[in-house]
Amino acid sequence: MKISDRKTIRKYKAVDVEKTLIHNLLRTASRAATMGNMQLYSVIETRTAEGKATLAPLHFNQPMVTSAPVVLTFVADFRRFTRWCDLSDAAAGYDNLLSFLNAATDTLLFCQNFCTLAEEAGLGTCFLGTTVYNPKGVIAALDLPMLTFPVATITVGWPDEDPAQPDRLDIEDLVHAETYHDADDDTIRRIYAYKESLAENKHFVEINHKQNLAQVFTDCRYTRKDNEAMSTGLLEALHLQGFM
Amino acid sequence: MKISDRKTIRKYKAVDVEKTLIHNLLRTASRAATMGNMQLYSVIETRTAEGKATLAPLHFNQPMVTSAPVVLTFVADFRRFTRWCDLSDAAAGYDNLLSFLNAATDTLLFCQNFCTLAEEAGLGTCFLGTTVYNPKGVIAALDLPMLTFPVATITVGWPDEDPAQPDRLDIEDLVHAETYHDADDDTIRRIYAYKESLAENKHFVEINHKQNLAQVFTDCRYTRKDNEAMSTGLLEALHLQGFM
Repeated sequence: MKISDRKTIRKYKAVDVEKTLIHNLLRTASRAATMGNMQLYSVIETRTAEGKATLAPLHFNQPMVTSAPVVLTFVADFRRFTRWCDLSDAAAGYDNLLSFLNAATDTLLFCQNFCTLAEEAGLGTCFLGTTVYNPKGVIAALDLPMLTFPVATITVGWPDEDPAQPDRLDIEDLVHAETYHDADDDTIRRIYAYKESLAENKHFVEINHKQNLAQVFTDCRYTRKDNEAMSTGLLEALHLQGFM
Repeated sequence: MKISDRKTIRKYKAVDVEKTLIHNLLRTASRAATMGNMQLYSVIETRTAEGKATLAPLHFNQPMVTSAPVVLTFVADFRRFTRWCDLSDAAAGYDNLLSFLNAATDTLLFCQNFCTLAEEAGLGTCFLGTTVYNPKGVIAALDLPMLTFPVATITVGWPDEDPAQPDRLDIEDLVHAETYHDADDDTIRRIYAYKESLAENKHFVEINHKQNLAQVFTDCRYTRKDNEAMSTGLLEALHLQGFM
């Protein structure tokens, strides 16, 4: 699957994905840009039924977590590097917010590179944004120590579905020449008009008894109440892991 | 350039990169996974000498910023989506830390996809991590409004150098089966031994009058003092942009 044809795959064949293949793809993925060539990431590879069962509720029991042959949790990791500094009489100062963001950035670039390579190899992937919804749970489940933090989870397997590609916004509406140009109200309405017109989105509005698609997002899918509660949990987890 | 051959390119030919090509690559890159298909990003495309001159000091005057034909700043953007919600009588709740991290994640996946596609098209790229070192400066330079935040800058051009590929750590040391396995001290030393043995790194140790490579990182390149000052600036910028 080329990047232009890419789609999320949530159903996988009951066929293993060899550890060697996954590690080869990860090795190539590590060619991504990385700050100061520090490679501030680790990957936790979950293959056992027990491991998947522990992770599943942390990802709202999305079925991919238990049905995928491999679940990869991508972890921002300043621990390994800091330990090397400690062993070298070097005074590491990476227990702060900037260092978290630097490590998270390294990790996400590496993660996206892995996804591209996996899809090129015929595998299907699903990116679970839920990883940062309950980081404390993931940290406990995977024994993540200080100066590490989970930022992404990818389920991987051989595709057993071929869904339609979802819509995307017009790229011209996302690119700004020289400085940010705030769109006027009519332009904002136009940008999202196609998305609102899609039958599946009209269906979401109807079954949720909402007036429009935006309300499905704000009132059902990504609510202020949930976002604020999860932001509190995220801050607590950043403290817990030593990044604040 | 394939992902396996990837290297950072800092010197570019004095040849333009057409806007159409850049936008086509960005369009394809937008096939990356995105939370709830919200596409929480914008790109600022800097092509004028004035624009590059304004950005250059914010990136420590690294010469790529003024010598590259195109500089792209990738911006986490919950503003466009929030404005659509506001116009739809939908109560948006995306002015919080989780929403920043969600938008930053969307943006970095999209950014990495762009880099892969640009390199596949024969372009060279350099990822400037300095974007988050002084976000308030970048925000001012690019007129970034509330609920937007710069997370990455990429310089793009036709390669005018062919440097050696840098070292990478052994992938087996970055992958953990089922849970995080903290390496013992000898393993940590072994993981970084090859890097320490490289002539260029020995040279860095020598010219900086340090005892070892780790001290070059902690005392010269990425110091506690700088990281803590920049973490304060990062938090202030997150407040300023409405994400705290």
